[in-house]
Parts: sequence; C-alpha cells; structure tokens
Amino acid sequence: MSDTDPIRTSPVSMENCGAALAMTVVPDRWTWLILRELFYGVARFADIQDDIGIPKSVLSGRLATMVDTGLIQKEAYRDGTARTRHGYVLTQKGRDLVPVIVALMQWGDKHLKDGTATLDLTDRRTGTPVKAGLVLEGGILPARRLAFAPAAHGDN
Amino acid sequence: MSDTDPIRTSPVSMENCGAALAMTVVPDRWTWLILRELFYGVARFADIQDDIGIPKSVLSGRLATMVDTGLIQKEAYRDGTARTRHGYVLTQKGRDLVPVIVALMQWGDKHLKDGTATLDLTDRRTGTPVKAGLVLEGGILPARRLAFAPAAHGDN
Repeated sequence: MSDTDPIRTSPVSMENCGAALAMTVVPDRWTWLILRELFYGVARFADIQDDIGIPKSVLSGRLATMVDTGLIQKEAYRDGTARTRHGYVLTQKGRDLVPVIVALMQWGDKHLKDGTATLDLTDRRTGTPVKAGLVLEGGILPARRLAFAPAAHGDN
Repeated sequence: MSDTDPIRTSPVSMENCGAALAMTVVPDRWTWLILRELFYGVARFADIQDDIGIPKSVLSGRLATMVDTGLIQKEAYRDGTARTRHGYVLTQKGRDLVPVIVALMQWGDKHLKDGTATLDLTDRRTGTPVKAGLVLEGGILPARRLAFAPAAHGDN
C-alpha cells in the first residue's frame, strides 16, 4: 500500500518526448531484430531473413521503412566473385542506437539468461570491459539515484 | 562499395542472445510506451490510457502480459479519500530497463528533436548531470570503439 498519490499525466507529452518519438521509429520487434542483425554485421536480405525467421514481405517492408527513417542504408559490396551484391548497413543514426541495443542486451542477460553474458564487450583500443549504463562523471549511476525534470527550454 | 564480405549469420543465435530475448519481452511500441508512463510515475489505468491514446482492451492485454513477464506489478494506494485504488508500478526487473529508456530518449533527442533534451537528468544525490552510454572504467566509450565476441561460456 503506497500513500503517495501517483501523478495523473506524464511531465512531457508524447510529441515532445525523445523516448516516445524514438519508439515510433523503432516500433516493433522486427525492427529491433533487424537492427540487431546489422549490429552483428549480417547485411544480406536472405541472411537476415534466415537468422530471424521473418516473412520475406515483412522484411522487405521493414527495410524500406528503415531506409526512409534513416536508420539503415543499402550498400554495394563485392562478394569475392566479379559480381556486385547489395546489403544493408547501419547509418550513423542507426549506429547511435548501439548503446540502446547493448543496454537491452545486458538487461536480457540479467533477467532472461540468469546473468549469463551474451557477448564479451570490450574497448576495441584497450581491451577493457565495456558496459552500458547511466553515467555520471567517472562511473555508472544506479537507476534509483536518477532524478529528472522537464528540460528548461520550455516546449515540453 | 565495400570490399568486406559481410558475415552470413549472427555470432549468437536468437535463443542465446540477451537482446533478442529482451525484444520478446518488450515486443512493441505499446509496451515501450507503457514502460515510459510508469518510468514517469503515471500509474493509473485511465491516466495511462489518456496519455498514450491506447485502446482500453489493448492496454488491458498489455498490462496483463507485463505483469506475467514481471515488468510491472499492481499496487494499492490511497488517493486522499477513504478509498483504496490500484495502479501499476515497475518491478525491480522493470526498473532495470530505465537505462534502456534513457538511452532511447537520448537517441530521440539527438535524432528526432534536433538535439533538444527532453529531460534534465541528474544524480538525485549530487545534482550532477547524467547520461546513458557505453561505459569504460571512468567514462563513456564511443560506440565505434566497441568490440565484441561471443562470451566464453560456450552456449551461444
């Protein structure tokens, strides 16, 4: 039993919330799973299809939308033969979702895999282990210490 | 034109990937938006419904699933009158998604809001600004420096 009366409406409207807007651009599990494939470096239509078991027409639609929203782009590459083939890669906008994917992965590792890590994440330069988290100068901040208020620019 | 032949399959199967598993538990935009409401502290069925514009039957189904998957729980509270009412709050498992929500929000702020912050995020204890990100001992690691390999426990 809580004696705190919960708030009646979120302090930021959907139209002004970066999170709600992001959820519109990455709206469903297929889109997340395609981002995961591209994060791993799987690039070809048929390979993505095989990996995540997505119907061809659905994959086709999601990829087109993701190109439109700027998350991914088509890229030509040589496959060792004389032929030029095409795949998909993350754009910078898409790559900027990597910390989100890593944070989600860590959450899955903790809560759905009994703490077993999916990947060893390290700094490419030094080999130091890497985690995703809330960051304060010098370290990770526990979520319970996070305070927030609508930003001061006045259009929330 | 890339000369790198892309990999043909992800290094970790869907069943062993914490991210893919997490995407099953948070599979759609409604679920994300409900998490966002609870993150903000909106707790009541009717208030969530109003805030995100979700059909009643859909909200009802999503909340039941989220209770089943352990993201949220029902909580009784007093609303200032003699009546006891019920709302929903994040469980610890649900609260552990806060860094993901914050990372997604920051991404939305950068790419969908021209860099305008949605919230001022600070350390509740010190007031120091907080960000979500990839963390190396002592700071945020740029995503481009992230290397990864399947974890060494051998069941990927």
